[in-house]
Amino acid sequence: MNYKMIAYIIGQIVRVEGVLLLLPLATALIYGENTMAAFLIPSLAAIVIGTLMTLKKPANTSIFARDGFVTVGLSWIILSLIGALPFSISGEIPSYVDAFFETVSGFTTTGATILKSVEGLSQGMYFWRSFTHWIGGMGVLVFVLAILPQADTRSVKLMHVMRAEVPGPKVGKLVSKISRTAQIMYGIYIGLTFLQVIFLLAGGMPFFDSLLNSFATAGTGGFGIWNTSIAYYDSAYVDWVIGVFMLLFGVNFNLYYFILIGHAAEVFRSEELRWYLAIVGGATALIAFDIRGIFGNVADSVRYAFFQVSSIITTTGFTTADFDTWPALSKIILVLLMFCGACAGSTGGGIKVGRMLLLIKTGLREIKYMLHPRAVVSIKVEGKPAEPDTIRSASSYLVVYMMIFIVSLFFIEMIEECDLVTGFTAVAACFNNIGPGLGAVGPSGGFAGFTALSKLILSFNMLAGRLEIFPLLLLFSPSTWRRY
Amino acid sequence: MNYKMIAYIIGQIVRVEGVLLLLPLATALIYGENTMAAFLIPSLAAIVIGTLMTLKKPANTSIFARDGFVTVGLSWIILSLIGALPFSISGEIPSYVDAFFETVSGFTTTGATILKSVEGLSQGMYFWRSFTHWIGGMGVLVFVLAILPQADTRSVKLMHVMRAEVPGPKVGKLVSKISRTAQIMYGIYIGLTFLQVIFLLAGGMPFFDSLLNSFATAGTGGFGIWNTSIAYYDSAYVDWVIGVFMLLFGVNFNLYYFILIGHAAEVFRSEELRWYLAIVGGATALIAFDIRGIFGNVADSVRYAFFQVSSIITTTGFTTADFDTWPALSKIILVLLMFCGACAGSTGGGIKVGRMLLLIKTGLREIKYMLHPRAVVSIKVEGKPAEPDTIRSASSYLVVYMMIFIVSLFFIEMIEECDLVTGFTAVAACFNNIGPGLGAVGPSGGFAGFTALSKLILSFNMLAGRLEIFPLLLLFSPSTWRRY
Repeated sequence: MNYKMIAYIIGQIVRVEGVLLLLPLATALIYGENTMAAFLIPSLAAIVIGTLMTLKKPANTSIFARDGFVTVGLSWIILSLIGALPFSISGEIPSYVDAFFETVSGFTTTGATILKSVEGLSQGMYFWRSFTHWIGGMGVLVFVLAILPQADTRSVKLMHVMRAEVPGPKVGKLVSKISRTAQIMYGIYIGLTFLQVIFLLAGGMPFFDSLLNSFATAGTGGFGIWNTSIAYYDSAYVDWVIGVFMLLFGVNFNLYYFILIGHAAEVFRSEELRWYLAIVGGATALIAFDIRGIFGNVADSVRYAFFQVSSIITTTGFTTADFDTWPALSKIILVLLMFCGACAGSTGGGIKVGRMLLLIKTGLREIKYMLHPRAVVSIKVEGKPAEPDTIRSASSYLVVYMMIFIVSLFFIEMIEECDLVTGFTAVAACFNNIGPGLGAVGPSGGFAGFTALSKLILSFNMLAGRLEIFPLLLLFSPSTWRRY
Repeated sequence: MNYKMIAYIIGQIVRVEGVLLLLPLATALIYGENTMAAFLIPSLAAIVIGTLMTLKKPANTSIFARDGFVTVGLSWIILSLIGALPFSISGEIPSYVDAFFETVSGFTTTGATILKSVEGLSQGMYFWRSFTHWIGGMGVLVFVLAILPQADTRSVKLMHVMRAEVPGPKVGKLVSKISRTAQIMYGIYIGLTFLQVIFLLAGGMPFFDSLLNSFATAGTGGFGIWNTSIAYYDSAYVDWVIGVFMLLFGVNFNLYYFILIGHAAEVFRSEELRWYLAIVGGATALIAFDIRGIFGNVADSVRYAFFQVSSIITTTGFTTADFDTWPALSKIILVLLMFCGACAGSTGGGIKVGRMLLLIKTGLREIKYMLHPRAVVSIKVEGKPAEPDTIRSASSYLVVYMMIFIVSLFFIEMIEECDLVTGFTAVAACFNNIGPGLGAVGPSGGFAGFTALSKLILSFNMLAGRLEIFPLLLLFSPSTWRRY
């Protein structure tokens, strides 16, 4: 591995985080809060260390797939370790493990919280907490790619880095230059976020709330800034705006690019998008029918059902109602959506609709093989035959996913001895980057009651879920660290 | 498809069932019960219809894989439809759907019961109920193959039939003649069952109980003949004998053949067997430690833990304790064992240890691919490289398995609106042919409370689980019924 180059890239990322930490510092300044030091110390430290790491550019800048994965895996852990410092230094989250969990939950856009009440933080901390969602949503390495000088990106094969950070079974470059692709994606991301802020302001939401809720929506994170999450605003307009924007951020960003360059027809041909919308529509209808008794009228049933479906399938995790008290059918649909996840190439987590489609087609092909053992049955994805490697890696992904899920569930139950629904949905909600689960980790509960060890296991799950397992798993493989 | 040949084979099976129904009839005679007609009518009808169907042997006796699957799928449904009649005619299970569920549960060796109390049946019905486990365990088509005249089996390619009925990722012939293979397997089956009866009698268990409990053990079925299942006997000796025999019936029968022909060394080289025993050992140790507080001493903790682990991993479903009241860790281990299942080529259900191993190795290979994209990594099974087809079909099996699981769970929750643990474990216990689950379907509960529609869905699950999905799924594919 090219250790020097990995250190160089990580140095860039650390420096960027140092600069980004100046934003919550500014917030604290504006609100006249005494938490300035909590931001300034980590910020300066990160800028200094990052700059030192990037002083000398390595002679050999070529990196391979494995280096890319290791870079991404390490960066996210280091980002979280640094990002947790403000919470810890200010004493607003006294335990460093708790602060680390909260920061991982932020960067991975999970939105699970160890705070018993979120309504006691300073404005600066609120800003940083929600801002981690926004940073993590599109990926911090993609951000670095977008701002790196062009000369760098030509010499460095950074596609591997991007591939490791952007979710989905397959990532393509939009344009030939990787830095330009990253810039386009961030452009769309910023544009959509800005649009949501405008819509929320138009509905009368205060600017600070509009901004932070938009950060959490854009990253499909879901940190609420009130204990009752979005239910606090008690407004159908807010519910619909955030519900629709969650859905939008769950769409593959490539499709927005196609719209931008005038190829809107491409968008409606997307098989993944059509299924994504069909699943949202079907699930909303079923749940709205199932909870009609709770809300009494069709409009409210649809509103609460749509919001929750959109929130869970995009793995955001905002809530407008305590769905833990909904009937069993609604709960099982939401649990299934937790695993389904959003579209590939979006900011959402989970297994991804595209990968699900591929797996289902693989299953159906197996049945056809049984019918006609000598037939040649090809699997088509988006109208084109899928490569055998893509199919194999989707199946293997499912297997590795389940292995990690089962081992995590096993350890959580061993450590916590909690009821099965709580344990199962705690792992599901963290691994799929959702946030709330059912039972003790339901919308009215949280992760405060877990032991430090469980919080670390769940932090691993959140990171593994956000980075689609392999970058994180590689860090734990001895052969990764063998020089050759 | 060769419809004539399929009808011919099904005719053979129906006739065999007619003859087998004479055994509970004899039991009823011996005990002087007035349920004779309930056995005699279906028995005679089956013999007459079966004989009519087999009067004329088709000119073309060749069948292909698809015909084999369809034959097996149809046979098992027809077997269950006929087998349910005695319960229904005698009025001991008044509802025919209930009787069908109970019979499917018997033949598929599930052991889930709709009876609120099992302690009210006549001796003849007890015999038939437990005997269905024994018939279903090794497979009724394998039985037909064992007793068919040799001339038949030479002309007919019946390997396809056997492959569809014997569980596991790959079925081999022990000897070149398929009928001889079937005979050897039934020989071992009868021998082991006989041995268990002797052991139970030696422990002072009445003959009738010894016989029926051995039937249920041999088939890894688990129908209890007392409401408290095996706990009724309250004997450490009985617990250990049944516990060990369940484990033995969960071993690939090929291994017993190797012992018989003096190749015992082969047995200990079996990777699947070693993992099977390691899992049982590990799970027993963990649960025994977890429940030490309930039973107070090491001997009892180990006894109850081992019995339940052996019962669940082999998918038998006998109980000696209400494990629904055990701590969460023990419950989660048992739930995981439900999916793991026993060895391929045994009478046990579930996903099978061998297939699990293959899937885990596939997952590990994917990680290696990520490390070294250009490396050629082969997967070894039992020391030999696995064929790509075997790997592909194991992965696809998992996908199809999960699809059916999720759809079933969805419908059960929609119909029953039961709590998630009950719904999840009801499907898991039926699909994996175990019997008891947790919550309302736990050891102290049952399936009596479900609606008729749910019972039919769960019957489908039991059949799909026993026949490893495809034979049953093919019956529902329109293209199966297209002539060509």
